Amino acid sequence: MARAVAGPEIERLIQLLSRLPGLGPRSARRAALHLVRRRADLMEPLTAALGDALEKIVVCSTCGNIDTRDPCTVCADPARDASMLIAVENVADLWALERAGVAGGRYHVLGGTLSPLDGVGPDDLNIEKLVRRAHESEVKEVILALNATVDGQTTAHYITDLLRDANVKTTRLAHGVPVGGELDYLDEGTLSAALRSRTPF
Amino acid sequence: MARAVAGPEIERLIQLLSRLPGLGPRSARRAALHLVRRRADLMEPLTAALGDALEKIVVCSTCGNIDTRDPCTVCADPARDASMLIAVENVADLWALERAGVAGGRYHVLGGTLSPLDGVGPDDLNIEKLVRRAHESEVKEVILALNATVDGQTTAHYITDLLRDANVKTTRLAHGVPVGGELDYLDEGTLSAALRSRTPF
Repeated sequence: MARAVAGPEIERLIQLLSRLPGLGPRSARRAALHLVRRRADLMEPLTAALGDALEKIVVCSTCGNIDTRDPCTVCADPARDASMLIAVENVADLWALERAGVAGGRYHVLGGTLSPLDGVGPDDLNIEKLVRRAHESEVKEVILALNATVDGQTTAHYITDLLRDANVKTTRLAHGVPVGGELDYLDEGTLSAALRSRTPF
Repeated sequence: MARAVAGPEIERLIQLLSRLPGLGPRSARRAALHLVRRRADLMEPLTAALGDALEKIVVCSTCGNIDTRDPCTVCADPARDASMLIAVENVADLWALERAGVAGGRYHVLGGTLSPLDGVGPDDLNIEKLVRRAHESEVKEVILALNATVDGQTTAHYITDLLRDANVKTTRLAHGVPVGGELDYLDEGTLSAALRSRTPF
């Protein structure tokens, strides 16, 4: 049984930090010490940044992205290709695509995937609004950038059906060998998909 | 080049989080999203805890521990064995020993080790005060719980010399095979120390 080393305020800070993904009890302790040591150039700015974010963060009413303005930075960007609507499961996926800088379109965050076992049905997701957006005249293509999991692909099929009478092309991300991947380490599903979708060299 | 996904407030929060030990740019992004999702039960309490800690954290004027009171929780604890003074390099080491719950004495944080190459001399460390505390009548033993590195052991030797005319026993942590350690993976120095300090079975 570990005794309390420091006062309850510090123990509480450590306990809260340990609930961040990627930090366990030990690294939360290290993070707390690091913060205390870097008081002026890290702890004070971080406290202020958290307060600032707390005050300003909103969910974009158009796409579901998290930002400090509504519509969000992506939706408000006039340089975006308005004909391309990219549906993602969650905000982390949106950020991952933006980080890669590969998609120049607008997004739509579904908020999860259909999962009958977990009791997640169509009404629990932001699907109805996606269908409404797909009917807007400027949208020409809906890219279903969902995870290559059973739930992700089931959701993609379900949405494709709903979009049948919208005047849009519905696409999904390609399956195949990840760049830098070695065949020896890949599962059969990926290898089979990569072979089926082979491209001329 | 990654574009800014969210507003500058969120980007700034991510950037500050990524400077915590254990979090890189990617996990800081995940941590920020996690905070935003758990607004009421994590982000708000964490912001408050940081502000609280910022306001109250002090360095213990007796031992150098970081706490919200001075003297710190450990120094103020009447159940501690006042005859045992444990010198450690830094606060993280003090917390590690407390976490293990193995030492019932009081501590003294040196603030580093002697390191001529890095220009760290005796005056840069909290050594003079350790010698003064070692001369207090209730102190019977000074345990030099320094890292088993060259700098740590040099510092231990230096302090042992200074404590020669104090009426205390000076000890250091045992070297040997870590519990659960396999001989095959240990370095020669550790094996040789473990053999020299072998104990009857």
